[in-house]
Amino acid sequence: MHFDHAGIATDDAAGLAETYCELFRTRVAHEEQFGDLHVLFLEFGDSYFELLEPTGEGTIARYLDRNGPGIHHLALTTSDIEAALARAKTMDVECIDEEPRPGAWGHDVAFLHPKSTGGILVEFVQH
Amino acid sequence: MHFDHAGIATDDAAGLAETYCELFRTRVAHEEQFGDLHVLFLEFGDSYFELLEPTGEGTIARYLDRNGPGIHHLALTTSDIEAALARAKTMDVECIDEEPRPGAWGHDVAFLHPKSTGGILVEFVQH
Repeated sequence: MHFDHAGIATDDAAGLAETYCELFRTRVAHEEQFGDLHVLFLEFGDSYFELLEPTGEGTIARYLDRNGPGIHHLALTTSDIEAALARAKTMDVECIDEEPRPGAWGHDVAFLHPKSTGGILVEFVQH
Repeated sequence: MHFDHAGIATDDAAGLAETYCELFRTRVAHEEQFGDLHVLFLEFGDSYFELLEPTGEGTIARYLDRNGPGIHHLALTTSDIEAALARAKTMDVECIDEEPRPGAWGHDVAFLHPKSTGGILVEFVQH
């Protein structure tokens, strides 16, 4: 598996993107409204920072209320997300998504529960 | 800049590495004792998860006491860490390290303060 992106919860995706573009010499690779989120991907080689700004109620809005802005999750690419999920289940890793579901940028995604993965919310992504 | 690694605070680097190697089909790329830390790098394409287990007092031990295990920082590679730090200072970004210092795996590193970077502890790394 390859590292795909770090998901970052923010209440100002556009402002943070502007700072990151100047500070890290990166660029916006993709931007969309996805459900209740304004989502903005910044390019770092073959990987991304995914800035997640809530535009309504939802998990990221609740995350920001509880924790403030910061790193929300880490995402790994797989060429076979069904097999990755099956392996997780075999290992008794708790899966938040029992089946892949549509994520941002047209990718299939599935999340694993942090309690099974060292306190880290891990996302499988299939492009 | 390219994504280099996610730093993960844990109280059991060896155990977490074993889980990740099976779950994510990765391997240990590097392991060392660095100051008061047992450090273990897992390979994900050109990027890494850096597992950080305290073996004494220090910032990671305090982080674990306050937050429990989880994502501690994100690291970006640069071919000119002095220039990256100078750019940060020009932008009035607060730098934890005013100058690069020796980090794990023989790399030069410098950290930026989360309050300037959207709540995220960012590390510049020069290999």
